[in-house]
Amino acid sequence: MFDFSLTPELAALRERTLAFVRDVVIPAEKDFPAYDVQSPEEIKAMADRLEVLRVQAREAGLFAPHVVKEWGGMGLNMREMAIVFEEAGHSLLGPLVLNCSAPDEGNMHLLEVVASEEQKERYLRPLVAGEIRSCFAMTEPAPGAGSDPALLKTYAKRERGGWVINGTKWYTSGADGAAFAICMALTDHDSASDESKQAVKRSQATMFLVDTTNPGFRIVRHVPSMDVNFFGGHCEVVFEDCFVTDDAVLGEVGKGFQYAQVRLAPARLTHCMRWLGVAQRSMEMAIHYANARESFGQRLGQHQMVGSMLADSAMEIHAARLMIWHAAWLLDNGEQARQETSMTKVYVAETVNRVVDRAVQICGASGISEDLPLSLFYRSVRAFRIYDGPSEVHRAVIAHRILKQYAE
Amino acid sequence: MFDFSLTPELAALRERTLAFVRDVVIPAEKDFPAYDVQSPEEIKAMADRLEVLRVQAREAGLFAPHVVKEWGGMGLNMREMAIVFEEAGHSLLGPLVLNCSAPDEGNMHLLEVVASEEQKERYLRPLVAGEIRSCFAMTEPAPGAGSDPALLKTYAKRERGGWVINGTKWYTSGADGAAFAICMALTDHDSASDESKQAVKRSQATMFLVDTTNPGFRIVRHVPSMDVNFFGGHCEVVFEDCFVTDDAVLGEVGKGFQYAQVRLAPARLTHCMRWLGVAQRSMEMAIHYANARESFGQRLGQHQMVGSMLADSAMEIHAARLMIWHAAWLLDNGEQARQETSMTKVYVAETVNRVVDRAVQICGASGISEDLPLSLFYRSVRAFRIYDGPSEVHRAVIAHRILKQYAE
Amino acid sequence: MFDFSLTPELAALRERTLAFVRDVVIPAEKDFPAYDVQSPEEIKAMADRLEVLRVQAREAGLFAPHVVKEWGGMGLNMREMAIVFEEAGHSLLGPLVLNCSAPDEGNMHLLEVVASEEQKERYLRPLVAGEIRSCFAMTEPAPGAGSDPALLKTYAKRERGGWVINGTKWYTSGADGAAFAICMALTDHDSASDESKQAVKRSQATMFLVDTTNPGFRIVRHVPSMDVNFFGGHCEVVFEDCFVTDDAVLGEVGKGFQYAQVRLAPARLTHCMRWLGVAQRSMEMAIHYANARESFGQRLGQHQMVGSMLADSAMEIHAARLMIWHAAWLLDNGEQARQETSMTKVYVAETVNRVVDRAVQICGASGISEDLPLSLFYRSVRAFRIYDGPSEVHRAVIAHRILKQYAE
Amino acid sequence: MFDFSLTPELAALRERTLAFVRDVVIPAEKDFPAYDVQSPEEIKAMADRLEVLRVQAREAGLFAPHVVKEWGGMGLNMREMAIVFEEAGHSLLGPLVLNCSAPDEGNMHLLEVVASEEQKERYLRPLVAGEIRSCFAMTEPAPGAGSDPALLKTYAKRERGGWVINGTKWYTSGADGAAFAICMALTDHDSASDESKQAVKRSQATMFLVDTTNPGFRIVRHVPSMDVNFFGGHCEVVFEDCFVTDDAVLGEVGKGFQYAQVRLAPARLTHCMRWLGVAQRSMEMAIHYANARESFGQRLGQHQMVGSMLADSAMEIHAARLMIWHAAWLLDNGEQARQETSMTKVYVAETVNRVVDRAVQICGASGISEDLPLSLFYRSVRAFRIYDGPSEVHRAVIAHRILKQYAE
Repeated sequence: MFDFSLTPELAALRERTLAFVRDVVIPAEKDFPAYDVQSPEEIKAMADRLEVLRVQAREAGLFAPHVVKEWGGMGLNMREMAIVFEEAGHSLLGPLVLNCSAPDEGNMHLLEVVASEEQKERYLRPLVAGEIRSCFAMTEPAPGAGSDPALLKTYAKRERGGWVINGTKWYTSGADGAAFAICMALTDHDSASDESKQAVKRSQATMFLVDTTNPGFRIVRHVPSMDVNFFGGHCEVVFEDCFVTDDAVLGEVGKGFQYAQVRLAPARLTHCMRWLGVAQRSMEMAIHYANARESFGQRLGQHQMVGSMLADSAMEIHAARLMIWHAAWLLDNGEQARQETSMTKVYVAETVNRVVDRAVQICGASGISEDLPLSLFYRSVRAFRIYDGPSEVHRAVIAHRILKQYAE
Repeated sequence: MFDFSLTPELAALRERTLAFVRDVVIPAEKDFPAYDVQSPEEIKAMADRLEVLRVQAREAGLFAPHVVKEWGGMGLNMREMAIVFEEAGHSLLGPLVLNCSAPDEGNMHLLEVVASEEQKERYLRPLVAGEIRSCFAMTEPAPGAGSDPALLKTYAKRERGGWVINGTKWYTSGADGAAFAICMALTDHDSASDESKQAVKRSQATMFLVDTTNPGFRIVRHVPSMDVNFFGGHCEVVFEDCFVTDDAVLGEVGKGFQYAQVRLAPARLTHCMRWLGVAQRSMEMAIHYANARESFGQRLGQHQMVGSMLADSAMEIHAARLMIWHAAWLLDNGEQARQETSMTKVYVAETVNRVVDRAVQICGASGISEDLPLSLFYRSVRAFRIYDGPSEVHRAVIAHRILKQYAE
Repeated sequence: MFDFSLTPELAALRERTLAFVRDVVIPAEKDFPAYDVQSPEEIKAMADRLEVLRVQAREAGLFAPHVVKEWGGMGLNMREMAIVFEEAGHSLLGPLVLNCSAPDEGNMHLLEVVASEEQKERYLRPLVAGEIRSCFAMTEPAPGAGSDPALLKTYAKRERGGWVINGTKWYTSGADGAAFAICMALTDHDSASDESKQAVKRSQATMFLVDTTNPGFRIVRHVPSMDVNFFGGHCEVVFEDCFVTDDAVLGEVGKGFQYAQVRLAPARLTHCMRWLGVAQRSMEMAIHYANARESFGQRLGQHQMVGSMLADSAMEIHAARLMIWHAAWLLDNGEQARQETSMTKVYVAETVNRVVDRAVQICGASGISEDLPLSLFYRSVRAFRIYDGPSEVHRAVIAHRILKQYAE
Repeated sequence: MFDFSLTPELAALRERTLAFVRDVVIPAEKDFPAYDVQSPEEIKAMADRLEVLRVQAREAGLFAPHVVKEWGGMGLNMREMAIVFEEAGHSLLGPLVLNCSAPDEGNMHLLEVVASEEQKERYLRPLVAGEIRSCFAMTEPAPGAGSDPALLKTYAKRERGGWVINGTKWYTSGADGAAFAICMALTDHDSASDESKQAVKRSQATMFLVDTTNPGFRIVRHVPSMDVNFFGGHCEVVFEDCFVTDDAVLGEVGKGFQYAQVRLAPARLTHCMRWLGVAQRSMEMAIHYANARESFGQRLGQHQMVGSMLADSAMEIHAARLMIWHAAWLLDNGEQARQETSMTKVYVAETVNRVVDRAVQICGASGISEDLPLSLFYRSVRAFRIYDGPSEVHRAVIAHRILKQYAE
């Protein structure tokens, strides 16, 4: 029967996470004015500063919450993640400290489900331990794969007893300083290994694990973006005659799009969880400001137009949280929940944007300054309405499913 | 741990309710072109036609779902009601047939909690059985009690060994043909009976059970309203030197406002449940229309602007339903849940209005015609943003609570 | 150079119209509880009551403002109409009294531009004089012509030295009691008269002037609709072997769609003018209510959430009015102004709906009652987002034009 | 009679401005990656680079458009400014190049109206010539003057035969590198010079012209802000025992708030004009992108959800432009037009934000990158909903005026 309680253990874990973020992470934010550093020295320095916090996270038993214990994580299910990730998300730095930030978090999940044992030992274990970082090279600049993955242009050719990848990616988040990339590339029937040839159709895609030390892998630039607080940047990356051997194939040849779904459905939801934390903190900042600041003879919050904004934010955050919890429960029950995760993604992304926008408005001149983190949040969350499928693409897909469901 | 499953019994009850509404209630809608009939003959005829359906509801085991079994109901808790009321709400006629429509449903709840055993036998039992109807006389025309209950003007004076009530009410829904009214009136300290005098402050209110046969009770008119489908009308009612004896006091003297909360918190939520059914059915009508109608070379639903409206409706209905379920769970757990029921009321009322509006738009000329029930729904649901506290009053209260909570 | 002044004459005419509506029309509204009467007796009685007011309008020099003087009107240009129609529109009855209501107003314009002198004498002159009424039979029930005129199914066959029309129309507004209909029907090349054969392509349409006394013309029913206040109803009409002679062709064979544009571009704008008056009056009602009603210790209007709604309405009405004026100026300068009239239609229709909705909300229980006309307005204006092309179709067309313009 | 034409001269000026911005300013944007430089060297370098462009602007006859010819400007009236400023505003750099950017533009206007001839020679002439820059020191950090100017804390004391100013300001835009500040400070009756003593009430304010070389003037920091592209930064500034002589008083003692209105009413509108250019350019970028990019088998713009966004932007920009033109016309006719400029400010600020937001969404990954200027626009325009009175304060004032107007 439906129920909205947390187990005592989970309630305690929430408190612990909240306390850790409040006492350790948020005070450290000032030491991380921007994550998107570019020189190797700065990247190293940032990693070192981060490691200081991560040591504390490990000590607090708050590290890699989403990974099974076998591979070094906390073994939380999606519902438990919903609780922990939201609290971690109060700070943009939080998920990074807890080693559950994008894109590593989604990559770990993908590796857990799809990778061979050897690949797991080589890539997953150090990733979970926080010893290395990774990136996911899928999005391409126009006219390549963006909202429409069918436009994929990067191509891996069967050659020299392995594969030669050529193509350009961008928004390969976290690429600079990453140890490896998961690269999505077209492969065709002829290039498939003998075993899988049967199942491969033309124009299918395959995922490859590519070490960033590979001479065929090159970072062109950090794409400057509104979502500035991303360690390792949003990079433009070129695969140029990038040769990899067969053991670089993640899972099976030709199943790239299928694996992308394996990664995206939960990744979409974990994104929601983290961003919801940003919304919650933004609203709380606005509340504190509205309680403190006076204008026109009363406290700011007593002005109904301010109160109305706060009430809307509270309602929408509440609805967003319940949608996340519900979708997490479905995933925990083995459902694919594509419709629900799509709906949740759109709703949460738009809610987060509205809530942060209202917080900026309430805080006025302070809101648009960078004295408060709201200004940074405002820019960062804007990307969320585009990442993982823009709202419009999701709406089209949601409508398509509804229409089809009732047509039957 | 949070969970969104229904028990098998509840899932079955949902199916049963849905089937009953689909097979019995909706086909009968055409026989009830309008409920707000005014002559005694028409009211009698309407009651007779309704009774035919109610017989079937009783046979289907779907009657008075919200009342404890002891008094003749199905004994559902709030979460179970959330399921049954939504399905019943697919038709404006549904809750009436199942005897869980406003205002009787809220009145039964109030009587169950507050009335004496004698009052229950006299008023509650026949109400649950569907033998009589009731009304709740609280709202007054300007400058009386509307959104702001403190403006209450109706006054009951201690006199002649009982009470003499004077005042004008309106929007006393269901009054015409009702057997009794629950009347909210100011009472003061001096007029309190000896026992309760101690606790009564000035300017407090008391609820009275007034038989509509009382010569001091008079229906002035049916207030014509957008919410036309209300059996017994939204009446303007006058209490003129209306004498009642002590046993007409519901609960204790001076506790009227307190009892109003007893009634309103769940009533606000059951309203949401029923209206959500209207939204769900409206969306489904729009889906069917969008699947069937063609324009500009494709099916209507394939036009993205139509799809976008459907996706928004699906998302918002989903969020609304989860908010209702959550608030119902809180109430089942003994919480007052004032903040959550307020948030749910605002969100659901506005969602229902948006969803019906989009359905009208999608169905175009058919939508604004009365060939589909959408036109009727459109008018009826408009009132929901005003009933039980307009959205603005709730937002102000929600904001006030938030600000206070964080100020501490 | 751009300028927003009115000539003194126009300013005076505005005042005169406003005064007439305030002093004569609005007080008479109570005598017209509904226009959509159905029996011949009631239609006659309604026409008689209307004539009493029209006599006063003629005396006040406020009759048929949009028609050239030659044919009995006031000879206003579009900008002058913008002023007069808005004031007339303060009452749904106003344009009817001034003989500038839909569909007659658009039909007069169409006849003025396209009809032969004989047709003008026969149809236009008595229409301008207010002696007869007319209707425009274009919209068809599914799967016929609605938003997409290309779906037109009604067909006129060249036969017996004239034309035989067959087809079903609905939303033929004003049909009951009208003297004639302008009927849009498909005609093909072979059925064209010899002269025009050259220019006619297959699947083109022609407009026919059909007397409602024609035995092939039949009113099936009044389609019940939210837009209730329409004299002559929104009728479903059947043309069944309806024979007309060649002089029933309006303009030339095969030019029906072209003439529809002649009618629609200004008709779209005059609709906006009239409805804007409804919005203005609704806002004013809300202002008066907000100034008079008290709640929670202050006047309603002092609550910021109420003030915010009023401010939004004032801003949007202001923007809407300027868009109408601008489009009217373009038309006066001989521009087709399709983009501007489309944009204005969408913006005004949606503004009017929002403004009336806010007025209902501010007036609360009075707003949803029919004690104020807001409830009637709320229903009536809903249709405006669908009439003359639903917002979605206009948006698609607007976007198409923009994209094309910049692609060049 | 109302008319929306431009004179041939103005149409030509518009073309000339548009061409200049397109050919000279926009290509130069890449050389101004950020204006908010902080070191004296960088400020000097930026000023030098700017001067190169300004030379071309002067040659093109496009310099200081808003200033009377007598003092070196082009002598445009408000309506002409509406045309020129919008075109200039296509680039954030445009108004700076044309020397009509905030805060200099508003300060020039204020000096023109209020300053003595000597003050004009000393401050206005070089400002118009582009030889110096200025700033306006009014806004204070909490708990000082923000939205509510009555909270003003900076105080000028009559002392030593002149005035000693003490106080902290922030968002003193353009302060770094400016030659002088106009400082708003409280002055009281006793401190007024003998002549004006009569008229001065307690708690009134006075404006002072303070050279930034004054040892009592100090820039504390550049407040980091979303509105990054501001030459001279948004500074926090301290006046510490800042002594000025009587000739530093701008206009009369005690008239500061009155002069603030002189500055704000047109400044509010010129802000709208410039920002509207940003919106127009953003929409055009989105159109070009939608015409070029393909996804899901068609051009992006053919997806209705994209088209719908473009249509909304086109409509709202159209409405916004008309509101600006109308308010400009009122000001040109000597009206104060407070209500109209307030409404225009709110509407334009919110429209600009929506339009830029939609452009970002349409351009997707490119939109949130800084490869297009949209990302910069997105951040910059956010401040516009707060500058010159946040939307909420304007709405409250607008509502107050409406209610009062109808109460009479």
